[in-house]
Amino acid sequence: MTYCVGICVKDGLVIIADTRTNAGVDNISTYRKLFLFSVPGEKIFTIATAGNLSISQSVINLLEEGLVDQQTGERERLLDVTSTFHAAQLIGRAARQLVEEQGDALARANVSADVTFLLGGQVAGEDLRLFMVYSAGNFIECGPETPFLQVGEHKYGKPILDRSITYDTSLHEALKLGLISMDSTLRSNISVGMPLDLVTVRRGALKVETSFRVEVDDHYFHDLSERWSAALRAAHKAIPDPPYF
Amino acid sequence: MTYCVGICVKDGLVIIADTRTNAGVDNISTYRKLFLFSVPGEKIFTIATAGNLSISQSVINLLEEGLVDQQTGERERLLDVTSTFHAAQLIGRAARQLVEEQGDALARANVSADVTFLLGGQVAGEDLRLFMVYSAGNFIECGPETPFLQVGEHKYGKPILDRSITYDTSLHEALKLGLISMDSTLRSNISVGMPLDLVTVRRGALKVETSFRVEVDDHYFHDLSERWSAALRAAHKAIPDPPYF
Repeated sequence: MTYCVGICVKDGLVIIADTRTNAGVDNISTYRKLFLFSVPGEKIFTIATAGNLSISQSVINLLEEGLVDQQTGERERLLDVTSTFHAAQLIGRAARQLVEEQGDALARANVSADVTFLLGGQVAGEDLRLFMVYSAGNFIECGPETPFLQVGEHKYGKPILDRSITYDTSLHEALKLGLISMDSTLRSNISVGMPLDLVTVRRGALKVETSFRVEVDDHYFHDLSERWSAALRAAHKAIPDPPYF
Repeated sequence: MTYCVGICVKDGLVIIADTRTNAGVDNISTYRKLFLFSVPGEKIFTIATAGNLSISQSVINLLEEGLVDQQTGERERLLDVTSTFHAAQLIGRAARQLVEEQGDALARANVSADVTFLLGGQVAGEDLRLFMVYSAGNFIECGPETPFLQVGEHKYGKPILDRSITYDTSLHEALKLGLISMDSTLRSNISVGMPLDLVTVRRGALKVETSFRVEVDDHYFHDLSERWSAALRAAHKAIPDPPYF
């Protein structure tokens, strides 16, 4: 499994992805699932992937080398597109094409071809946007009322986001909340694992602000997890006892 | 959907169940999913159900009126059993029998016959025990290392339990944590809904200590939810900013 979260607030965008992949419980590996495509000052796209690793890796390769348009015969790379909406369309086309090609064979082997993507990005002249793209090629866009999207094993890490993220949350706070959401998932589900990859993009900057791998021995992340646990313990102890007895 | 949580700590047992059932999103109702069977001073069983409502209601009815043993022809009611282990076996037999009888017809109607049960209880002369019973009739028992079991929509409410519940947690604290876990689930998933039913049983008491319905306007539960939200906000704000920028 996988857990990736994208948060799109007033100041910018955070995307965090774990790196664990597993085929069963006895074949566990570390793979990058967060990718950056950028022409600084012109356009930036960051993509996180969940689901079938062979499909998602092939999608990333097609986005790099270009996807042939069936009508025009022209090859289009992700960095050729002129809007984030077109980037979402291109990812969707790549995924749909691969699923059409390999889906039946995968189904016969009892393997799901399902993939989902988070796409965050901005092109000069348009606003910063965050999308979730499905393997059928369709996609939805994140809005300010619920300024986050999740793919993969999303349930464990959702309550903290539901309670705490608003569109006015600062970028630093959004990153912190994303890391807490990730930590909650890591603790409850062994199919999500360290290290973590994270990217932040400030709205309007048209370049990456932070691209960082949080390793398993990262001091800050360890401290965040400990502080969070201690705060939760203090929080529930401070709540009066139920009067139902 | 449903969410039920059972917590079995040193001092006793807490079981909490929501009351929402839904067939699709346009057919939502309130049904009791927490049941008590007790002969005070002799035996007490409390059962929470998740899954197909027609199957789980029929299981409860069979436990009340007695299930005919195919070998002996004798009728056995839940309150006839002489251990909690046998109670789990009886629930399992009832569920398996109903699934065998109706499962194929339900599958043809694209309805899952799946059900799961939490069974907590104690019989004079044996210890307090908590089981999770599956529709195939098999079951597992809760142990002191992870002193809780969940059925239904369990993921949203698991992180708080994973971080905070130990075998030495007091019964009041366990109830509080169960309610926080329930509140997290209510906030993140509309298929889980108020009111909540809860039961507590003190180890060795052989009778129910608390049996209470938390209504939608319950002052304490509302206050617990508010305090929890405020504490989480304070907790993440108190964590230093990430040094990754």
